[in-house]
Amino acid sequence: VSLPDEPLARRVVEGDVRALARVCRLVDDRIGGYRTILKQLFPHTGHAWTLGVTGTPGAGKSTLTDRLIAALRAQNQRVAVLAIDPTSPFTGGAILGDRIRMQRHHGDPEVFIRSVATRGALGGLSRSAVDLLRVLDAWRADVVICETVGVGQDELEVTRSVHTTLVVMAPGMGDDVQAIKAGILECADVFAVNKADREGAHATVRDLELMIALGHTTRSVRTATPGVGHVGAHAALATHPSDDDAHWTPPIVKCVATRDEGTAELMTKLEDHKRWLFETEAGSERRFQRLRDSMRAQLRQELLEDAERHMGAAIDEAVRAVAERRLDPYTAAEDLIARFQQS
Amino acid sequence: VSLPDEPLARRVVEGDVRALARVCRLVDDRIGGYRTILKQLFPHTGHAWTLGVTGTPGAGKSTLTDRLIAALRAQNQRVAVLAIDPTSPFTGGAILGDRIRMQRHHGDPEVFIRSVATRGALGGLSRSAVDLLRVLDAWRADVVICETVGVGQDELEVTRSVHTTLVVMAPGMGDDVQAIKAGILECADVFAVNKADREGAHATVRDLELMIALGHTTRSVRTATPGVGHVGAHAALATHPSDDDAHWTPPIVKCVATRDEGTAELMTKLEDHKRWLFETEAGSERRFQRLRDSMRAQLRQELLEDAERHMGAAIDEAVRAVAERRLDPYTAAEDLIARFQQS
Repeated sequence: VSLPDEPLARRVVEGDVRALARVCRLVDDRIGGYRTILKQLFPHTGHAWTLGVTGTPGAGKSTLTDRLIAALRAQNQRVAVLAIDPTSPFTGGAILGDRIRMQRHHGDPEVFIRSVATRGALGGLSRSAVDLLRVLDAWRADVVICETVGVGQDELEVTRSVHTTLVVMAPGMGDDVQAIKAGILECADVFAVNKADREGAHATVRDLELMIALGHTTRSVRTATPGVGHVGAHAALATHPSDDDAHWTPPIVKCVATRDEGTAELMTKLEDHKRWLFETEAGSERRFQRLRDSMRAQLRQELLEDAERHMGAAIDEAVRAVAERRLDPYTAAEDLIARFQQS
Repeated sequence: VSLPDEPLARRVVEGDVRALARVCRLVDDRIGGYRTILKQLFPHTGHAWTLGVTGTPGAGKSTLTDRLIAALRAQNQRVAVLAIDPTSPFTGGAILGDRIRMQRHHGDPEVFIRSVATRGALGGLSRSAVDLLRVLDAWRADVVICETVGVGQDELEVTRSVHTTLVVMAPGMGDDVQAIKAGILECADVFAVNKADREGAHATVRDLELMIALGHTTRSVRTATPGVGHVGAHAALATHPSDDDAHWTPPIVKCVATRDEGTAELMTKLEDHKRWLFETEAGSERRFQRLRDSMRAQLRQELLEDAERHMGAAIDEAVRAVAERRLDPYTAAEDLIARFQQS
């Protein structure tokens, strides 16, 4: 593939960090010919292994991410991190201190860290994040880590677009938090039970094992036949991935990130998943499936933006008619869509 | 407004509970002429006061909702409850026990309780929920309570479509949970600090007061000038709504829902907000704004569904081209949208 014509895109592909930072800013703000840059960078993507780190708030994701960065740097890999902060749609300010915690990699030219803020409506977060993951890939990062808080549709969408998803949990987060986890669990490729020195760690591991055994994860649900699922469940109970290449059973690794315990084993399990993903037929199918999901999401975003641009004023008129109950909102929507299609 | 032609819609408007249950099922499953029914019910909506109850998991929303139902029944009001359960997009099964907890209202013909499950993608939850709120309104409920877990874009969207939003918090949920709260807080019209007999309740109240004083809620941000905002902040510190009709400052009420403490005061504050909403000019503007937001959301949903129907096969082709890097996803999306517009 030939180098991009666009100067900034070219410099990113050549590994220039300052150009990378600038392109990230343009993409995040959706200004300055960012779209041309994205188009030109795309043929240069496909090099990086993308790793999502998600989980319940307070589980210690940032500390663990920090450990993973250090482990990858020890292997001399180039690492890029995208940290997604939950923020107010109004103030636009970041709340978490992820960036601060990861400062110790500052000055390492082979580590690039970038935060994105949650956008207000329309799933803008997931779109920006997916675009940024591609930019970081084109910069020739070996590993792109995407850290999300793991709540919300948007973040689930980002999680679905990475190769390998690590779900971080901590003991004793309470029963109701189980509810939040539902969406995250189904994206899990590897589980880390962090703060494993705390009371309740064993119970958390057991709960996860049970859930995996019952097939409450995407992996087993999607690819296992009932018989194979049962074998997979036993494999899961031993916290080893299944020997059966046709499906992946998420292993569970206990860690104490603050003391760097369990990082090596965790890294091994993550790399096992990478191998499965890139070296088996089932893994290849999974990657195609994820690309499709990601593209559908992108398509939806762009369609909505186009439509809002075209229908702006007409929407306000329709709202007024509905507010006065001269029109019902269902008929109003049908009329507006028909108008957009003819525009 | 004349009665609906459609027999089920007619029976709902006449107050028939069995017809109501059936229509809810049709709307939730999006089958059986549900759209005609929704269109015919719409002119009969506008009677109910819709009340959202949301907040961090474990804060005791269901118990408090139960108390509010009892208080409203004591005033002889007809109450409908829509409980939104976070569920797996795959299993479709409910996790929380809301329905069980509210069983004690079972048998009261003036209380109707319905659960909806979270839908997988595309914000299907918010759309179903908003439709169901309208159905419950058309049944002539005096109050429609919508209980959500309060995490996720979808649920935020539901929250934005109700008249009055009660945000329930509990002491000691940890710092990181603050992050999740960001989205919820901005929707708050009234705060309940539940489990107020626990350690840390005072600190939670103080945190909220500070946040309100700093203008971190939609209400003050949207309508206050800097000077007025300052006055509002002081009013908030005294946990009274501002005397200034032009904007609403969310009051904070301490409760112990399990012992039914604070329910009466909470009810008063909620009714204060209702009065502000329906009897002031600023309130009227707010209602129009919310209808617009809600309609825009509906429009987006319908557009996406139409587009998916039209582009189905073409999307798969495009995904293949992108997977092989013959095409970039940005150009692919542009082509697909152009094709949909010409269909």
